[in-house]
Amino acid sequence: MPRKIDAVDFFYLSMPEIQDIGDGSQDALLVRVVAGDLVGWGECEASPLVTIASLITPMSHSACKPVAASVLGQVIDSPADIERIHHQVRHNSMDLLQADHALSGIDVALWDLLGKIRQEPTYRLLGFPQARPKVPYHSVLFGDTAQETLFQAQEARRQGFRAVKFGWGPFGHAGLQEDIDQVVAAREGLGQEGILCVDAGTVWTTDVDEASKRIKVLEECNVTWLEEPFHTGGLHAYLELSKRLRVKLAGGEGAHNEFMAQHMIDYAGIGYVQVDTGRVGGITSAKRVFDHAAAQGVQFVNHTFTSHLALAASIQPYAGAADHPLCEYPGQLSALAWDLTHEHILRDDNGEITLPDAPGLGITPNLDAVRKYLVDTTIEVGGRVLYRTPSV
Amino acid sequence: MPRKIDAVDFFYLSMPEIQDIGDGSQDALLVRVVAGDLVGWGECEASPLVTIASLITPMSHSACKPVAASVLGQVIDSPADIERIHHQVRHNSMDLLQADHALSGIDVALWDLLGKIRQEPTYRLLGFPQARPKVPYHSVLFGDTAQETLFQAQEARRQGFRAVKFGWGPFGHAGLQEDIDQVVAAREGLGQEGILCVDAGTVWTTDVDEASKRIKVLEECNVTWLEEPFHTGGLHAYLELSKRLRVKLAGGEGAHNEFMAQHMIDYAGIGYVQVDTGRVGGITSAKRVFDHAAAQGVQFVNHTFTSHLALAASIQPYAGAADHPLCEYPGQLSALAWDLTHEHILRDDNGEITLPDAPGLGITPNLDAVRKYLVDTTIEVGGRVLYRTPSV
Repeated sequence: MPRKIDAVDFFYLSMPEIQDIGDGSQDALLVRVVAGDLVGWGECEASPLVTIASLITPMSHSACKPVAASVLGQVIDSPADIERIHHQVRHNSMDLLQADHALSGIDVALWDLLGKIRQEPTYRLLGFPQARPKVPYHSVLFGDTAQETLFQAQEARRQGFRAVKFGWGPFGHAGLQEDIDQVVAAREGLGQEGILCVDAGTVWTTDVDEASKRIKVLEECNVTWLEEPFHTGGLHAYLELSKRLRVKLAGGEGAHNEFMAQHMIDYAGIGYVQVDTGRVGGITSAKRVFDHAAAQGVQFVNHTFTSHLALAASIQPYAGAADHPLCEYPGQLSALAWDLTHEHILRDDNGEITLPDAPGLGITPNLDAVRKYLVDTTIEVGGRVLYRTPSV
Repeated sequence: MPRKIDAVDFFYLSMPEIQDIGDGSQDALLVRVVAGDLVGWGECEASPLVTIASLITPMSHSACKPVAASVLGQVIDSPADIERIHHQVRHNSMDLLQADHALSGIDVALWDLLGKIRQEPTYRLLGFPQARPKVPYHSVLFGDTAQETLFQAQEARRQGFRAVKFGWGPFGHAGLQEDIDQVVAAREGLGQEGILCVDAGTVWTTDVDEASKRIKVLEECNVTWLEEPFHTGGLHAYLELSKRLRVKLAGGEGAHNEFMAQHMIDYAGIGYVQVDTGRVGGITSAKRVFDHAAAQGVQFVNHTFTSHLALAASIQPYAGAADHPLCEYPGQLSALAWDLTHEHILRDDNGEITLPDAPGLGITPNLDAVRKYLVDTTIEVGGRVLYRTPSV
């Protein structure tokens, strides 16, 4: 018998102190979808408070409805049901910008739920007979100094990582020579064989000439990709830099729907597309991006910098694709993000990771940790309480 | 002496009842920016509650900060200061999706404030020596039946409007024949001379063949533009339809930054670009879109369906451009949206409208109306009240 969605609950989790650094794992928005006696879990990679508001806000007009209105009471029994709910949220909340981030976590939770209903891993419901091992790249922030980055790269190598990505921190902010020193240090620490990627965190907005000053060091250090030199919308800038640089460009984490990621594939000359299932519209949208990337000869790589629940969700859309072997593996998780799940996706003897062969995402939240990091939140509008932190 | 921004206040206004129709004027988010003894006003075309949350949310990480953090305490004395604040919001709140909608109203209020500091109309600060008259098109929802649409078109003609746009309502939902009847009725009511535009409200998502079934009636009824047949991101679909259809395409209201609107100009084959200053990033972003449109031979038209404060803001970015003469003029404002401002922009004897020659936007909110429609809102996180409706 098809199940009905009885509840959609958002939980705002946070470390006690949030630092002003690029570490997105310092807080989390956990999503629980309940259908009868089954529960699906997901995570939005988004501002928790703002995304909660988008779930429960009063309607503004027919195309600006609260996200919950398009999900509660819906029937779920097949992938087509998720597609339908997904489309309804997008349509009914078209003018509610934050809705895409809310939808993302809900969509992930729906795929987890459907996997539990069908007793299948999510990736199988997406059409992959099995999950292939992925080569995880250790994803960390640049050190405050090149020396620190050198140590981090050496440590990653010692831990057996075959690939490392450095990003954010002082890169692009401290000056050209500092950037050069950082990349050289990363390569030195990693050794000549390791895969080295660099993430500029959109620092040059659309300034191709400023980005181009790093061409020499990126090429000489044999960097595999330069990620996000520009704003996600700077398609012309991407394309222009892609013509000047032998290193491939990567981007897409800023995409909050499949269209934006497809534009990067179609117009920006990127070699790698990296969407975050917790932002792009969940597994449904990420799978569409994967399909388009594969058809266009662009590599798909997950973007993930948070918990292993989010990590598991982010790999589902390309789990079975042997020719898309790389995988972002967050290397500096906050205690919250690590504690959040019972299970963790760990490297095997080959240094590779594989999704669990279990119903849904195969990763479940640790409710003790949820309670520990839970932030009490109340939203009251016109004398009515529209949101109060649900009980776990 | 340069002024410092002392306060940024958001006010959630609403009609007592919100109907499930495409009328975006049923609620409003009013923005007040205070610098010493001067005040600037703006409006976000956005979900009020969610946008309030984006103003005051706790920081998630360095690129996901509350919008207020990049505005409060900033110096404002020149257009370059607004550009700087604008850039900071975008940079510091890159991962906060709703921030673009919040920024939009703040940016409008900053341009109003700067006009008051400099004692100049905003359009003059944007480089236009004077505001040109615009031909307002009466913008209304399709009637529930073709008969109702006929009456509305006749009424618009009787009121002396030279241009009318019908949109949303049953169009695209009721069936092909119903759509044909609607367009025929609109043309019949308006007469052969009037400018007739049709707004499909993204109803066909990316389905070019479904949209194409309306080609014959759109061409036979001499429609000036077909607006938003597809999702803002459906660039391929737009381009394909633009090749099949002699009627020009219009779109852009879904753009929440200048990049998205520029992509429509560059890749989608549209003839008219219509951004909403209350969504795209305010007057700063809308002016960039205008500059790009003008350079590419695409007509710029404001998108506005709310108050005359928003209307005044939406015309500033192309106020002085004589060769971009059309202007959306909301024709079915809610009592709230009409009451919200002391002044209204009315048609002159030529049936045209012109921006007021007064400092800033030249339109001021009626604070009695603000108090009347104000919705008390409280947001509490971790035991701290982060937002409570400010006093007017």
